[in-house]
Order: sequence, then C-alpha cells, then structure tokens
Amino acid sequence: PKIVTLPGDGIGPEVTAAAVAVLREVAPDVTIEEHLIGGIAYDTHGDPFPQVTRDALKDADAVLLGTVGGAQDSAWNLLPRHLRPESGLLALRKALGCYANLRPVRVQPGLEHLSPLKAELARGVDILIVRELLGGVYFDGDRKIDGDTAYNTMRYTTPEVERVARVAFWAAEQRKGRVTSVDKANVLEVSELWRRDVTALRDREYRGIHLNHEYVDSVAMLIVSDPSRYDVIVTENLFGDILSDLAAVIPGSLGLMPSASLGDGAGLFEPIHGSAPDIAGKGIANPAAAIMSAGMLLRHGLKRPEGANQIDRAVALALREHPTRDLGGKADTQTFTRAVLSALE
Amino acid sequence: PKIVTLPGDGIGPEVTAAAVAVLREVAPDVTIEEHLIGGIAYDTHGDPFPQVTRDALKDADAVLLGTVGGAQDSAWNLLPRHLRPESGLLALRKALGCYANLRPVRVQPGLEHLSPLKAELARGVDILIVRELLGGVYFDGDRKIDGDTAYNTMRYTTPEVERVARVAFWAAEQRKGRVTSVDKANVLEVSELWRRDVTALRDREYRGIHLNHEYVDSVAMLIVSDPSRYDVIVTENLFGDILSDLAAVIPGSLGLMPSASLGDGAGLFEPIHGSAPDIAGKGIANPAAAIMSAGMLLRHGLKRPEGANQIDRAVALALREHPTRDLGGKADTQTFTRAVLSALE
Ligand SMILES: CC(C)[C@H](C(=O)O)[C@@H](O)C(=O)O
Ligand SMILES: CC(C)[C@H](C(=O)O)[C@@H](O)C(=O)O
Repeated sequence: PKIVTLPGDGIGPEVTAAAVAVLREVAPDVTIEEHLIGGIAYDTHGDPFPQVTRDALKDADAVLLGTVGGAQDSAWNLLPRHLRPESGLLALRKALGCYANLRPVRVQPGLEHLSPLKAELARGVDILIVRELLGGVYFDGDRKIDGDTAYNTMRYTTPEVERVARVAFWAAEQRKGRVTSVDKANVLEVSELWRRDVTALRDREYRGIHLNHEYVDSVAMLIVSDPSRYDVIVTENLFGDILSDLAAVIPGSLGLMPSASLGDGAGLFEPIHGSAPDIAGKGIANPAAAIMSAGMLLRHGLKRPEGANQIDRAVALALREHPTRDLGGKADTQTFTRAVLSALE
Repeated sequence: PKIVTLPGDGIGPEVTAAAVAVLREVAPDVTIEEHLIGGIAYDTHGDPFPQVTRDALKDADAVLLGTVGGAQDSAWNLLPRHLRPESGLLALRKALGCYANLRPVRVQPGLEHLSPLKAELARGVDILIVRELLGGVYFDGDRKIDGDTAYNTMRYTTPEVERVARVAFWAAEQRKGRVTSVDKANVLEVSELWRRDVTALRDREYRGIHLNHEYVDSVAMLIVSDPSRYDVIVTENLFGDILSDLAAVIPGSLGLMPSASLGDGAGLFEPIHGSAPDIAGKGIANPAAAIMSAGMLLRHGLKRPEGANQIDRAVALALREHPTRDLGGKADTQTFTRAVLSALE
C-alpha cells in the first residue's frame, strides 16, 4: 500500500516525522511518499494545493497530514482567500471526497488531572464526534462579499445528510449504540431537513441504534458539564467544527487529539491541533496526536486494526512515562517518539 | 415608567413573580403590566406573540420576560414553525428592535465550587458576551426546505455590524477595555465583512479599546480552558447563541445567568435558562437569574444603577445563605426570594 504524507507548515513536519517513524516500524511494507501542502506549497509552487500533490494522491491508499497555516500576522493571511494555507486543506478534503470527519475524544485513565474539567467529570469520557466535512456553509457556491453586504449559504441535501449519518450509525454499532444528532431545528430549515433525514435513515436501516436530537447551543453546554452522556455525536460542518474543538479541551491537551476523514476514496488522517508557529522548529512539539492519527490510518485506511491497537497502547504508555511539555512533563518530540517506539510490542 | 412582564411558559411565571416582587420593593413607582407570550399565548390567542401583547409594548419602557417553550415532546413542537413558542420570542426581539444581547458571565466569589471547571480556572471569571440578535442566519428571508434540499442564508450588512460593535466597545469602556471579536473569517465571506467593519469602527471611534479577532472554534476551546483571558466578546447571532450558552456553564448553574437585549426602543430582560417543564409549578425553581435580569432592567432599561447594585448585592448574599437546589442547597423559590427581599438595604 502507498501512503502520501503532507507535513505542511509549523510543527507539521516535526510531528509527521514522528508518526512516520512509528508507521515504518508497525507497517514496514508500506510505501511512503512526501508532498507539499499549505503555506509551504504556496511558497514553492504558488498554490496551497499544487497539481503535483493532487497527482500523487491518485493512487494513494491513505493520506497522513501534518498541519497547515502560519501565525495570525503571517504574510499568508494577507493573500486572497483561495491562496491561503487553509484553502489548501479545504481543497484537499474536497479532492479526496472525505465527507465524514471522525474525532474521538477519550480521557486516558490516569490522565484526568490534565482536563480543565473537574476530574470526576472528565473520568471515563469516551465520545466520538462525526462531523460532516464537505457541505453546509463551507463549500456552497452561493457566497459573496460586496460593498457593505456579505452572505454565505448553509445548504444540505438528503444524500449528503444520509452518507455521513451512515458513518455515525455504523460507528455506534461498534460502540454503545447511541447517536446524538445535533442541529438548530428550532430556527433553521436546513436543520429541519437534517433532523428529518437522520431520523428516517435510522427508522429504515438502523433500528437497533438509540437516536436522539439536541440543539447545538444545548450540546455546547452539556458536553462540558456532563460529557459522559454522549456516545456518538453527528452534526453538520460548522457545528462540528465548533463542537469538536470544544470537546477537544476535555482531555486537557489538543496534543492528544487525532482525527480521520473518510469518504469515497483514500482517507485523510491528521492531528487536530494547529501549526503552533511559536514552537515550530524547536523539537518540543507533542507528536502524540500525529502518531495516534497514524493509528487511525492503519485502522480505517488500511484495515489493520492490530497495528492500530499496538500504536494506541504504546502511546498510552509513553504518555504516562514520558509526558511532553504541554502535559506538564519534560519530554521533547524525540524522547516521546523513542518512548513510543520502544513501547511497541 | 411602565414595565411589561411576559412570564411565558414552564417556570417562567414563578421566576417572574419573584423578580416582580423584588422590583416593586426597589422601584415602587414603576407600573407593571402583565401579558402573554409563547405557548400560553398560542393556547389563548392562537398566536405565540399576539396583537394584544404587541400593543402593550408600544409605551413600555422595558420588558421583563420569563421563559417560553415546552418539553421536547410538547404538542407545541408539532405546530408549524411560525406558531411555536420560540417564534414568539424571535418575533418579540424583532418587534423591539433589540439587536444587542448582553450576557454577563461572572463567577461569584465563594461559589467557584459550583463550576464544572477546576476552581482555579473558574475563580474571578468576569466576561461580557455581546451577541448580535437580529441578523445572520436567524431572520433572513432567503431560507427554504423543499424536497431533498434545504438552505439558510447567513447575511450581514455594515450598519448591522457597526451598531452591535458599538455596544461592545461602549461596554468595554466601562470594563477592562478589551474586546474580542469572534468570527470564522478563514472560511466565511460574511465573517470577512464582520471583521473588516469591527476593525474600521474601532480605528475610527474607539482607539482606546484593545481589539483582537479570534475564530469561533478556537474561542469555544479557550473560553473553557482559559476563561480569564476574555473581557468583552462580541459576535454574530448563531456563534453568540452557542458561545453564550457554553460560557453559561462556567458559573455552574444556568440559574445564575441574566441577560439584557438592547436596541432602538424598550430593552428586553430575561434569564437565559429555559422553561424547565419538569420542575414547573413545583415552587422550587431558582429565581436568581430572573431577579438579576430585573437588576439589568433597572441598570440599562431605566438607568437606575443604584437599584441594580442593590439587587446584585442582595442576590449575592442570598445565594450564599440560602442556595437553591440547582446549587446544591435546599431553598425553594419563595425562601430564596424572601432572602433577597430581606437582604435589600
Ligand atoms: C482551518 C479551518 C478551515 C478548519 C475548518 O474550519 O474546518 C479547521 O478549523 C478544522 O477544524 O480543521
Ligand atoms: C429558543 C431559541 C430560538 C433561542 C435562540 O437561538 O436565540 C435561544 O436558544 C436563546 O439563545 O435565546
């Protein structure tokens, strides 16, 4: 199998290198090809998602992404929108057809103290957020800024809702069998469609799943005040962007949060943290999320669950024995990566 | 001065009665007129915001609202959207021209233990969220559900952005002088307008204010992991809905969260908690948020800051000495209200 890595900007190259080292150990038969994306791709090719990268994806079985983007005051942010690093990421998602973004939020036993929540609330949290990634207000053609007016359109169609809901129901079947669908159906027509279609699909094909519906404002509250009530959460693109970042605070460090984006073709696997330009190049970034993303790549991209489990166990051990600075420890990127490598059985 | 009270549904009448008792004590010269809104207005007049209520608002100086809406499975939720209780509330906001919703989030000294956050994070939190209340995806005409497609439009104009930003800058002038404007400018054109116009207004008229811009997903994270970094937050309608409910968990009970909605005419003052149908009629609801909303009514609606301060002090005392059940105490609505009344100096 062939994997394309896109290290990107900031700490992306450092954490991707760590993930690649672990991948090579667990899946030595995999071919790895590195390409450019984001700001560095713009600097090199004048395009944050250049043709040479596009071409390389054609026969890839999975894509491992680092991070894209620069500091708030970076020159990249002064470019026209379609040339900015983030646009490269959005175009990549679109090109791969990755419509379902999976973000597991798990508090590791023994690491409850890292959470900003009281330990008794954080303990045992195990949520999977499934965010629709190609629709809603992100990609619709009808958008404009013109003089003193601007608008964007939040749009969904039934097929778009159903394909991502299927992923949520399928995931719930391997978990506790509960799905919470999140919308703002008391205000939005687009949420009315979302709720109707998710319900109909459950009634037709997933009768064993317990489905409930909650409003996005209410979920924002409950996910931090009573996180244990959730198993799988499924929601549209913008709500998913907000809620998944919010939920990511529960384990206490973004450095612990991997993600998988699945769709029609090759999946996209990436840590959810940003490019952290302030610590880029210093060798101190926590590579755990990138390494765990490589684990998700093995599980969902290459269907190698044993390899994924191996990585998860090794990361859990390394986190306890060699915590990085964001976790209050002292390990740098290399020390942590070595700890993972030597914990692999 | 004349105040219209709209007790509404669920626990609305109980908590409004408590707030009215306190108002009568602090501002005995005020005329109070009660009218219907929400589900009860629909049941009585076939309209959640009936003409008789509309008419009563014409010469009101301020409006004190309870809560609207029923349980998830309430018959009201099966009505066409424009007849549901929530639509009555949206129509009321529109009729009053209340474009700026102010939600203070304050952790009272000595009550840090109520927060789901660790006490050291909750301590001293004092944020004012200013939510735009009449624009964005909430009210725009261009919205539809039709067969297997649905959409809503998120729209803003420069005058809409400026008028609410002014309220935020004005509020910051009486506080720590810092405003964080929240958008999703890396994806949305409508956020690009928002950011541009907020910045231009600051540069033109509020040069003493420190303004920064953050993305909504990032604020969702930071507001619970590092709440002390914020002074005033200003944002558009939907982001404000989500973030203000989220921030409301910080003090530990929705029962402690008042709000004021200001605009062209009479202001609207309401607790942010819902109608809590499960405890309605039992006399155990916490009326603190409604009473504090009456305080905001005195401060912003009738320009009587001394009365507002009197109420705030009395509520703080009552909360410590007679906590209600949602706060882990035993006081019922009446006991708490009496405690506030007797703590008024
Ligand atoms: C960078 C940005 C466009 C992106 C998004 O909003 O999808 C990011 O916030 C994310 O969640 O991956
Ligand atoms: C009931 C609903 C329409 C309302 C809103 O979204 O504005 C509520 O959530 C609020 O925040 O007051």
